[in-house]
Amino acid sequence: MNIQSPAPQMDQATVPHADMANAIRFLAIDAVEKAKSGHPGMPMGMADVATVLFSRFLKFDAVDPSWPDRDRFILSAGHGSMLLYALLHLTGSAEMTLDQLQSFRQWGSKTPGHPEYGHTAGVETTTGPLGQGIATAVGMALAERLMNARFGDGLVDHYTYVIAGDGCLMEGLSHEAISLAGHLRLNRLIVLFDDNQISIDGATSLSCSDDQLARFTASGWSASRVNGHDPEAVAAAIAQARDNDRPSLIACRTVIGFGAPNRQGSEKAHGAPLGADEIAKTRDALHWPHAPFHVPDAVARQWRAVGARGQAAHAEWAGRVARLDGAVRDYFQAALKGQLSGGYDNALAKIRAHFLAERPKIATRQASQLVIDVIASVLPNLLGGSADLTHSNLTRARMQTPVQHDAFDGSYVHYGVREHAMAAAMNGVALHGGLIPYGGTFLCFADYSRPAIRLAALMGIRVIHVMTHDSIGLGEDGPTHQPVEHLASLRAIPNLLVFRPGDAVETAEAWDCALRTPHAPSVLCLSRQALPVFRDGIDSTNRVARGAYVVIEPEGGRDVTLIATGSEVSIAIVAAKLLADDGIRAAVVSAPCFDLFRQQPGDYRAAILGSAPRVGVEAAIEGDWARWLGDGGEFVGMAGFGASAPADDLYREFGITAAAVATAAMRCIARSRIAAAE
Amino acid sequence: MNIQSPAPQMDQATVPHADMANAIRFLAIDAVEKAKSGHPGMPMGMADVATVLFSRFLKFDAVDPSWPDRDRFILSAGHGSMLLYALLHLTGSAEMTLDQLQSFRQWGSKTPGHPEYGHTAGVETTTGPLGQGIATAVGMALAERLMNARFGDGLVDHYTYVIAGDGCLMEGLSHEAISLAGHLRLNRLIVLFDDNQISIDGATSLSCSDDQLARFTASGWSASRVNGHDPEAVAAAIAQARDNDRPSLIACRTVIGFGAPNRQGSEKAHGAPLGADEIAKTRDALHWPHAPFHVPDAVARQWRAVGARGQAAHAEWAGRVARLDGAVRDYFQAALKGQLSGGYDNALAKIRAHFLAERPKIATRQASQLVIDVIASVLPNLLGGSADLTHSNLTRARMQTPVQHDAFDGSYVHYGVREHAMAAAMNGVALHGGLIPYGGTFLCFADYSRPAIRLAALMGIRVIHVMTHDSIGLGEDGPTHQPVEHLASLRAIPNLLVFRPGDAVETAEAWDCALRTPHAPSVLCLSRQALPVFRDGIDSTNRVARGAYVVIEPEGGRDVTLIATGSEVSIAIVAAKLLADDGIRAAVVSAPCFDLFRQQPGDYRAAILGSAPRVGVEAAIEGDWARWLGDGGEFVGMAGFGASAPADDLYREFGITAAAVATAAMRCIARSRIAAAE
Repeated sequence: MNIQSPAPQMDQATVPHADMANAIRFLAIDAVEKAKSGHPGMPMGMADVATVLFSRFLKFDAVDPSWPDRDRFILSAGHGSMLLYALLHLTGSAEMTLDQLQSFRQWGSKTPGHPEYGHTAGVETTTGPLGQGIATAVGMALAERLMNARFGDGLVDHYTYVIAGDGCLMEGLSHEAISLAGHLRLNRLIVLFDDNQISIDGATSLSCSDDQLARFTASGWSASRVNGHDPEAVAAAIAQARDNDRPSLIACRTVIGFGAPNRQGSEKAHGAPLGADEIAKTRDALHWPHAPFHVPDAVARQWRAVGARGQAAHAEWAGRVARLDGAVRDYFQAALKGQLSGGYDNALAKIRAHFLAERPKIATRQASQLVIDVIASVLPNLLGGSADLTHSNLTRARMQTPVQHDAFDGSYVHYGVREHAMAAAMNGVALHGGLIPYGGTFLCFADYSRPAIRLAALMGIRVIHVMTHDSIGLGEDGPTHQPVEHLASLRAIPNLLVFRPGDAVETAEAWDCALRTPHAPSVLCLSRQALPVFRDGIDSTNRVARGAYVVIEPEGGRDVTLIATGSEVSIAIVAAKLLADDGIRAAVVSAPCFDLFRQQPGDYRAAILGSAPRVGVEAAIEGDWARWLGDGGEFVGMAGFGASAPADDLYREFGITAAAVATAAMRCIARSRIAAAE
Repeated sequence: MNIQSPAPQMDQATVPHADMANAIRFLAIDAVEKAKSGHPGMPMGMADVATVLFSRFLKFDAVDPSWPDRDRFILSAGHGSMLLYALLHLTGSAEMTLDQLQSFRQWGSKTPGHPEYGHTAGVETTTGPLGQGIATAVGMALAERLMNARFGDGLVDHYTYVIAGDGCLMEGLSHEAISLAGHLRLNRLIVLFDDNQISIDGATSLSCSDDQLARFTASGWSASRVNGHDPEAVAAAIAQARDNDRPSLIACRTVIGFGAPNRQGSEKAHGAPLGADEIAKTRDALHWPHAPFHVPDAVARQWRAVGARGQAAHAEWAGRVARLDGAVRDYFQAALKGQLSGGYDNALAKIRAHFLAERPKIATRQASQLVIDVIASVLPNLLGGSADLTHSNLTRARMQTPVQHDAFDGSYVHYGVREHAMAAAMNGVALHGGLIPYGGTFLCFADYSRPAIRLAALMGIRVIHVMTHDSIGLGEDGPTHQPVEHLASLRAIPNLLVFRPGDAVETAEAWDCALRTPHAPSVLCLSRQALPVFRDGIDSTNRVARGAYVVIEPEGGRDVTLIATGSEVSIAIVAAKLLADDGIRAAVVSAPCFDLFRQQPGDYRAAILGSAPRVGVEAAIEGDWARWLGDGGEFVGMAGFGASAPADDLYREFGITAAAVATAAMRCIARSRIAAAE
């Protein structure tokens, strides 16, 4: 099976293991000391494990850290960032110079407090918020198996290694992640648990009595415990884990702050510089007499050799890619680049035109289902899924088959009731490359996955969240399931595109925007209830792409502008007709994406918003609507939580009706005329 | 030990168990059918288990569902709300009339789609978002042990029972909850797992392979599996669980939609009415020939007897309370009512006066620490804690000792790295009564606990979140740990008070507001960095209580108003001085709580905001600031994520400085003068 994975091998051990590990330890110690802040304890404790992993197992090429078939190394315990930076520096990352290590945690450096994907070459994912790394790694390990099933061992054949700490394993997210990984038997996933029995408050026994090995075993993992300072024991455990048919946990019993006589084994080693005195004692204790940041030549050379160890495998892989049939190679490379295949443009245009022609009155989640059916058939790199709401989110295309441990050729993941792991795993899939992930849940449960959504936005990766039942319009399930603040709270996340399409046409356009934005995640907020198509005309311009646009422009100028999103656009259109009956000229603006609208030139925004008074309509709390409505504006929406009742009753009782919008418009116009007269 | 818990006992079984259970089943079936929506499968599957629990074990008094020493029954699988409503109706809740069952999921009814605390008597907590019930129950079971340690078996001696489904156990939150409960050996907590092997997407085998019994055992629980349709087996398991020294899981193997010939055992029974035809067949299959909503008299009488079963225990308990020493009784009753004890007012006033007099330049998290030290000594019902950031959040009072399984007289919980379970458990503690919970984490990780914070807001309960490191001011840890959108996203949650105090005085006042608001949760957003005291004068008015107030009112009227929160108030004050040097009269408004400010009368708000142009300053994204700044205003803050560097560098690089505020003010004034001249 592993036709090109380098077999576990000992490097010619001209340099003792301890020196290799101490090089990591002291770079971490010295960088934290110079920065006057940071976390020395974890790199010191895990230096032995990391040395074994990198020098004997990890398949990577330091000069090309993005080689697609590399093993992934995820530092889930991201506060130990100096472990990773030291390894990148030692193995020969061009970017990770000594100067960068000496600029640890400083403005503009490549060495931020926690590792940041996209900021530093060789960082596979942004970590720091605990539990995220391990869950993201599950997505990477899943992507590896999916891509392997599509392209074979010759092109895709690598492991995903994770270093996780007690904090990661206490986070609930870790349960979702290990349960999912165990179910899918992601045997290429190996977690090295920094089992140091210390967390920030003190001994983990203060707060945790879990038998972690039993816990992982209960979720279908292989689990073992080793002395994390015994390189041969660690190596044997990793070798065994690589040959397992299950994901593997290796609990590495370590001493936090290993080597610091007065701090080791205590939470005092975790998150603060050791100080000059303790550092001197640590140098003595570990027989490392070298100056700060100095790595002896022999050690440096040996680490460079480690960094070059994967070059042969890399070259062989490149050779196999070069020898591929041209069409397969193109397909493989297009997938890795995340390109939308040639058939996509036509397919999307066709379903959009179909909606314009047929004007189906359907829920936007149903429109989304139709879009997914079409695009899944032309985008083989699309990976669908839902957190156990497939029939409600309508996220599964007819042609998609479930991904299972014996069916990695599938393209639809039943993520289970695991919104958070779904979001984090989708991050991992997107980061791995080769697949475009989307996944569904109810908009209200965006709260469960929010930390992972935030990381996607911070990393700037294409992950598409299909979040249905997007307002009180979901009806009887009541306020626990009705999002009212979620649009505002998601719009608040920088670099996240929040779409709330108002009809089938806008739904197709929103999908198109999400797919064509490789550097940001998107949330599609979709209705449970049926909505009429309001878009007129058959032009091919994607209007959602500008964030907001005019749906109705009254003749003779505007008396008022009604701005609405999603299901409320139709209400605004009816309100405009009511107003027209009273001789009032109301424009209607649909604003499916505030984020994109904000990015438009000022004159475009001014033209859309107009100078007449404005009324905003959204079945949600006001949030940042004031920005669009201005001093003379009014907002028609929710002032608090929803209630359990049929949707129509709720809209009526909460006063989100065409009549209420018309009344608000009249008030605004009257105020504006009084102000003008003064 | 259990001096007054009614021993497990068989009621005089004049009515067969099956009829008792079928009464629940058909009320659920009929109510869902009438509502044309809802979830019949779970009540049908768990009717047998619930019948055993209620008729043989649960200590409650149907006519007084808030009796403090009742057993708690938590329907974590909240979608099965009709199970609970049927039980409330059958056992004789005055409120839960047949008419209410017939108004299931309708506007204004007591029977919303998911059970809502505060809305329906007998509902212990709002459930529906999965995993919340079980985690909230952990807090209730913890509160029971804490109160027991303080008041003894005669006053506090009850169990917490939970019905949870597969969905609850897949949620990551469940891991945090069971891990915490296992660590604390909350032996009065008994989870009845509706082990029906079905979730919404289909068989749980589609997405989950966990060995739940092994998993719970790994976290220190006792775990067993029974046939959930065998009442004697269920009863035996519950009896055993009650005598255990650990929390207990009883996996009840059930058939979802039990009795519906064509739907049972399938996800089709989960979330939709059965339909007339299938209901008729179910009536046949279960030998229940009665009309819809009709319960035969004998069955109804027997259920009423169940509802009255706890009255004797209730009366005995009331007798013990009456015989208490007056001071103890007052203390017990004040605790149950959540009152702030007599010494509180003085203690709070004293620390506030101390801050005003001494003007300490300290971080608001440090000021909070000093406040906690003072109030913990006068509020014995205060329960502190942190999600493993005690030394950073500064949440532990000197006099607080840790809560452990052998130390329930402690008053500080080391929640571990479990932000979500901490928030949910605090909800449970508050709901249980007797204790006022607060807990700490970093503001950025509010995202992890958000679903539980939302529920606290929806329920209207007093839970205090101490969230420190509230901006880029945390510095080197970087953007993964720097909240930028969290103020906006928390302010978006209805009925949640978000405080961002700007100095020590405001910190004391914010604490006071949070403690004096029994019907809403609060978030105290506190700085890592030191801030000078800016409040002048020694008056005793809590200014934070009005949400915003004037710190500097220039003589001769305002040219501009600078509005700031938290750490940026000091920056605005310096900006006002810079502007004064240029002859510009700037008012400075501190706005520590938007929510409270919004609740003030319009004339107060207008006086504070003034009519001059306004500049907002907050080291966060703009969010809903436009509401306060108006068309002529400007916002100085963040436009995206932060970065890793020392805090001062970040403020400078992101342009959140007094000079930038002054420049923005000049721009606003110039624009305003041009507009006035036109």
